[in-house]
Amino acid sequence: MDLNAIPTPAALIDVRRMQTNIRRMQEHMHALGVAFRPHAKTAKCLRVTQAQNDAGAQGITVSTLKEAEQFFAGGINDITYAVGIVPSKLPQALGLMRRGCALNILTDSVESARAIAEFGQSNKAVFDVLIEIDTDGHRSGVPPESRALPDIAAALTAGGAQVKGVLAHAGSSYDLSERAALEALAEQERALCVRAAERLRQAGYACPVVSAGSTPTAIRAVSLAGVTEMRAGVYVFFDLVMRNVGVCSMDDIALSVLTSVIGHQKDKGWAIVDAGWMAMSRDRGTARHGTDFGYGQVCSPDGAPIPGYIASGANQEHGIVSLSGGMDAKIAERFPVGSLLRILPNHACATGAQFPEYYALAEDDMEIWPRFYGW
Amino acid sequence: MDLNAIPTPAALIDVRRMQTNIRRMQEHMHALGVAFRPHAKTAKCLRVTQAQNDAGAQGITVSTLKEAEQFFAGGINDITYAVGIVPSKLPQALGLMRRGCALNILTDSVESARAIAEFGQSNKAVFDVLIEIDTDGHRSGVPPESRALPDIAAALTAGGAQVKGVLAHAGSSYDLSERAALEALAEQERALCVRAAERLRQAGYACPVVSAGSTPTAIRAVSLAGVTEMRAGVYVFFDLVMRNVGVCSMDDIALSVLTSVIGHQKDKGWAIVDAGWMAMSRDRGTARHGTDFGYGQVCSPDGAPIPGYIASGANQEHGIVSLSGGMDAKIAERFPVGSLLRILPNHACATGAQFPEYYALAEDDMEIWPRFYGW
Repeated sequence: MDLNAIPTPAALIDVRRMQTNIRRMQEHMHALGVAFRPHAKTAKCLRVTQAQNDAGAQGITVSTLKEAEQFFAGGINDITYAVGIVPSKLPQALGLMRRGCALNILTDSVESARAIAEFGQSNKAVFDVLIEIDTDGHRSGVPPESRALPDIAAALTAGGAQVKGVLAHAGSSYDLSERAALEALAEQERALCVRAAERLRQAGYACPVVSAGSTPTAIRAVSLAGVTEMRAGVYVFFDLVMRNVGVCSMDDIALSVLTSVIGHQKDKGWAIVDAGWMAMSRDRGTARHGTDFGYGQVCSPDGAPIPGYIASGANQEHGIVSLSGGMDAKIAERFPVGSLLRILPNHACATGAQFPEYYALAEDDMEIWPRFYGW
Repeated sequence: MDLNAIPTPAALIDVRRMQTNIRRMQEHMHALGVAFRPHAKTAKCLRVTQAQNDAGAQGITVSTLKEAEQFFAGGINDITYAVGIVPSKLPQALGLMRRGCALNILTDSVESARAIAEFGQSNKAVFDVLIEIDTDGHRSGVPPESRALPDIAAALTAGGAQVKGVLAHAGSSYDLSERAALEALAEQERALCVRAAERLRQAGYACPVVSAGSTPTAIRAVSLAGVTEMRAGVYVFFDLVMRNVGVCSMDDIALSVLTSVIGHQKDKGWAIVDAGWMAMSRDRGTARHGTDFGYGQVCSPDGAPIPGYIASGANQEHGIVSLSGGMDAKIAERFPVGSLLRILPNHACATGAQFPEYYALAEDDMEIWPRFYGW
């Protein structure tokens, strides 16, 4: 496999690492007795999603209806759109359902539940709706003890919708790094999501789906009693944020950016590379962590991290590679013009999004896997 | 024009503002007696570039060879690729030249100059090369007094290349905000770039092109004596960083993201919108400024800023809109589910890059302008 044949910057997938990440997560979910519904937003790539389903995943999660359309066209027909739906998107959701997609949509307000029910009724359709539960104050959702919870269920079932279940995402897990704290958050996510389902059942709604998850809480969960499925996205590639959260090692990271050295500022110990923020994304997710990798960890072309060297700065198409906390006066000899480097990203979801395709590197094989973007 | 017909999130261009930005910059460059070569990396859109050339621009600047390919295919044949070229990209550059593109490429090292000259010679071609000058320690380039400067020129002219001139970019202008400091930096960029050209001329190189510029230094330049052309990119749309730098007002910003309200966290004073960082980009360029706009300034659907409301947080497809430095307990009444908002971006280059197309809004007309990405 000749990396020199790849125009830089390029997004590389280490297929062996990706398959290991997929297998481990699936085995963990199986051991905990729950179904697994991977979040396709990280890779936005049919080949990746197929690998997850081949390993035993049941359906997928998406963050946009474009993802739903693309993956449904690719043969996946069990899809949860895990962002609260805006009423203007209901016609598109209905279109997917009418073409045979088993689509679950999401709400966290009486207002939006009414809009879904009314639109369903007037179109003689029944939407499968999950009610979003807030288990950690991170973002959206109603608290499990909220008075709104039965009101949302009632609003849905007054018309063209049914309560498929509840869904939670403990996104604050990204801010933790201690194993005990992650286990506690995973248990909190589980318990509060199950509690919401129990309240709905007490109110007469069957609530068959209890869906929870984020990559850190899925990995650190010890018990998932009462949960029917978990969701996770970034685990498929992992990244430096997940490394800092403590749920993967540097050697598990399956996504990197291939870049060429284009020049130097020798007096500053800088090598300039052709991966700027347009390639790495502007995500500086490790800036708030104990170990700040700048715009990414520099690796040799074979993917081995070069300790201490990071992408310390970025302009649109220029990245600055330097020794963290030091100055390498011989950086021009270490990384001459034209040499190749790989950079591990802070956040795989953000870095992947900058590229139209992945170069998927397997043992003795390289394929181009298309990726889509936009809405 | 019905904004409700646009699926959210979407990138909107206010065409009247864009045309005003283009006209003002062109008039300013004309008054200062220099040619203007806009940087197409901001919009990556043929329609925008055509509007700049219609207003009097002479050629374009690009940050990738993909931009060069796309704009050359669109009829623009005077192109400066303003990122130091890596030798592996020389065949692609030569391909463009052989198809009739007047392409200038860039170097800042003897090493890379030799590679260009040798490749040109062995392919019986002559590359037009600009030598990059570092006038503010920001990124790439050699200092104007550098001993390497004549060596680079000599390396180029030993083979299949010629010294077309010098090029500088005072990127540190983005970190300033005082008018006097910007004027001083513009003068420094001018003087040092002209000085480099003079040194080359003394050494016997004609050096016909003296190219400088960034949006702030182009706008604040008082004299451009000795400069032959200026370059600027983000001025075409402007953004909140440029507003904080002091070279535009909020009312000049021509790019915004249309978004729908999808829910609320009333107790926190949050409206949740469907423009997360995937739409806004992760660029937090105003974080280091006196006025931090979070992920963007919230506006009503007609584009009027709503004072105090910003996109204060972002996940991949969720944005959090809230009152900066306060709590709006009635945010759900102010911005009900389904209502539309527009968000002005921190950095137009980064936000534009998240979208496959722009919705270009003119007086009584709306067009979709495609945008490209990748390398």
